Amino acid sequence: MRSKYIVIEGLEGAGKTTARNTVVEALGESGVTDIVFTREPGGTLLAEKLRSLILDIKSVGDEVITDKAELLMFYAARVQLVETVIKPALARGAWVIGDRHDLSTQAYQGGGRGIDRHLLTTLRDAVLGDFAPDLTLYLDVDPRIGLERARARGELDRIEQESVDFFNRTRARYLELAAADSRIKTINASQPLEQVTAAVRETVTRWVKGQA
Amino acid sequence: MRSKYIVIEGLEGAGKTTARNTVVEALGESGVTDIVFTREPGGTLLAEKLRSLILDIKSVGDEVITDKAELLMFYAARVQLVETVIKPALARGAWVIGDRHDLSTQAYQGGGRGIDRHLLTTLRDAVLGDFAPDLTLYLDVDPRIGLERARARGELDRIEQESVDFFNRTRARYLELAAADSRIKTINASQPLEQVTAAVRETVTRWVKGQA
Repeated sequence: MRSKYIVIEGLEGAGKTTARNTVVEALGESGVTDIVFTREPGGTLLAEKLRSLILDIKSVGDEVITDKAELLMFYAARVQLVETVIKPALARGAWVIGDRHDLSTQAYQGGGRGIDRHLLTTLRDAVLGDFAPDLTLYLDVDPRIGLERARARGELDRIEQESVDFFNRTRARYLELAAADSRIKTINASQPLEQVTAAVRETVTRWVKGQA
Repeated sequence: MRSKYIVIEGLEGAGKTTARNTVVEALGESGVTDIVFTREPGGTLLAEKLRSLILDIKSVGDEVITDKAELLMFYAARVQLVETVIKPALARGAWVIGDRHDLSTQAYQGGGRGIDRHLLTTLRDAVLGDFAPDLTLYLDVDPRIGLERARARGELDRIEQESVDFFNRTRARYLELAAADSRIKTINASQPLEQVTAAVRETVTRWVKGQA
């Protein structure tokens, strides 16, 4: 079986980290053990520096970073990660599990922030071509439940900066894009975490069997 | 007369700085004195930091910056400059004179480095829309003459990194794009500098009269 790129997506508090561990276990049971982990934005020297640069300038506050400049910096980080980490890993036969990828940009920047949808897809197509995850697990959570989970683990500061409306718009775009792409599997992540874990395991195991 | 954005383009040693001073004088004779100067890449905090980031990572050498990542960083710097400096200056009635703009990317990255032409124009259109200089002065110089001038002022290190072939390809793309766009005026910059200056002055003065 050719190596695959699996991405885990969802709002804060959806349970992405737990899901990743479950995916690793499910893959292990299928004999896949050579796995590279990525996290966006970041994962290379350049990508991490771009991420810091955005945060640094925002914190200084002397200059407002335009939406388009920020978007281009995220895509610079993404293409650097894809070309120097993800593609080489897949080429040598490793599987790759990503914590977020392009779908986050489409959902957060497009749905949440309202950046023009056509600009986002044009940029994605120009930069990434037809490169895309083989499987994306979208953990769909009600923002109120996700925020509550994030609050319980002390990650509230960053989240409170955005309104619940923002997360509702982001979620709506996630759901719309997932419904239109058979490579994206939507998992109900508003359930108790044990049930989310069971659903992730079942989805991945069935999908891997279908690839054999 | 509405304020205008004039850009000066050309290879190293073409005489861009001298030409800029000539443009300022010619505009002054036409009564234009409120002028903002830009230089690419750079001109804002974010843009300068992006420029440094590219140079820093290249100098460390731990990571190869992919062509696409570099290109996206240049466009991030450019859109930040256009949105936060150039457009506001034009809106308040100032003229803007730019040392390089998008044509440099089309010529150097497209012609010199061989990045896909379609990718470059797609990115430009997606990021900048229909924003473009009102007038571009392309100073066309034989690379051997330009290099000789740059050598005379001690700027050889940076230039020697690229081959003469690279500059010939860049020049060919400049000439091709200038021939296809009436807003780009090509000036023979292989002549002695006094003659270049006279040609720049005459071109700008005639163009400004035509705008009145």
